[in-house]
Parts: sequence; structure tokens; C-alpha cells
Amino acid sequence: MMKIKIHVTLRESVLDPQGTAVKSSLHAMNYHEVQDVRIGKYLEVMIEPSDRPVDEVVKEMCEKLLANTVIEDYEYEVEEAVTQ
Amino acid sequence: MMKIKIHVTLRESVLDPQGTAVKSSLHAMNYHEVQDVRIGKYLEVMIEPSDRPVDEVVKEMCEKLLANTVIEDYEYEVEEAVTQ
Repeated sequence: MMKIKIHVTLRESVLDPQGTAVKSSLHAMNYHEVQDVRIGKYLEVMIEPSDRPVDEVVKEMCEKLLANTVIEDYEYEVEEAVTQ
Repeated sequence: MMKIKIHVTLRESVLDPQGTAVKSSLHAMNYHEVQDVRIGKYLEVMIEPSDRPVDEVVKEMCEKLLANTVIEDYEYEVEEAVTQ
């Protein structure tokens, strides 16, 4: 069993209204040291190795479903041999 | 300027319907190697150091606003000296 940790983040050029709202809230709570907030998704996917290479499977899942590559970037790392 | 990378995840004992939905979709797309999916939030917060220790500020922000500690856990790492 492998644990895949995937980060899906908005591209830099794309506005992040959710992040802006959180920044405003933090300022309203007197955290004026906060300069910027960007919010993305974090997914942990448990995969049972198959006959296809994991990298190929994960990239395909990200491109087809997990990330919208028009406005989002994704990164992942693979943790081998996780026992549940 | 420091970049704080924050992961907010549901506690293990808490059901994750969003993750379950994504898992079902992946199975429907014939990714049967997927055993489980858990979905959390990933935040990047840019902070200008103040007179308070960064760890103290970040923990406080997480507990008060960014995570609901009844059902969520948070982890963070600090990247020093980021130039924008």
C-alpha cells in the first residue's frame, strides 16, 4: 500500500477569493503580520500497486479528475510501504 | 517574509464524505487500485515577522480560525526568508 500526498493549488496568475477572505478575517482579528493567504486542496490517496507504474496512474488521476489544470497546479509525493 | 505551509486534515475518526465521493469517481473511472481518499485543506500564509514568535502566532491563527480543532488536525512548517 502506498500513500500519495497530493497538493492542488491555484496557479499564481489566478485570483484566490477564498484566500483573500481568510486574509481579511485574520486582519480583522489583529494578525497584521499576515501579508497574503492562498488556499489549495490537500489529498491523501491510498493506492494498492498494480501493473501500471504509480507515477503514471497518479498523474493521470490528477489531470483527469483531481486538478483543473487550466487554473490549478498539482504536486505529489509517494510514500512507499504504508501499513494500515 | 516567511512562508507558512499549513495542512488542515479531518481527524481519523471523522467521516470524509468528500473523500468518499472522489474515491467513487476514481473507481468509476477504472482506477481500482485506489483504496481510500481523504481530503483536507492546504494553506500558504505569507507572514512578515513581528515582535511575537512565529510559532505562537501561527498556532493561535490555526486554533482560532483556520482549523476546527474538534474535528480537524493541523500541521505546519515554516519556510524562512522568502523573497517575493
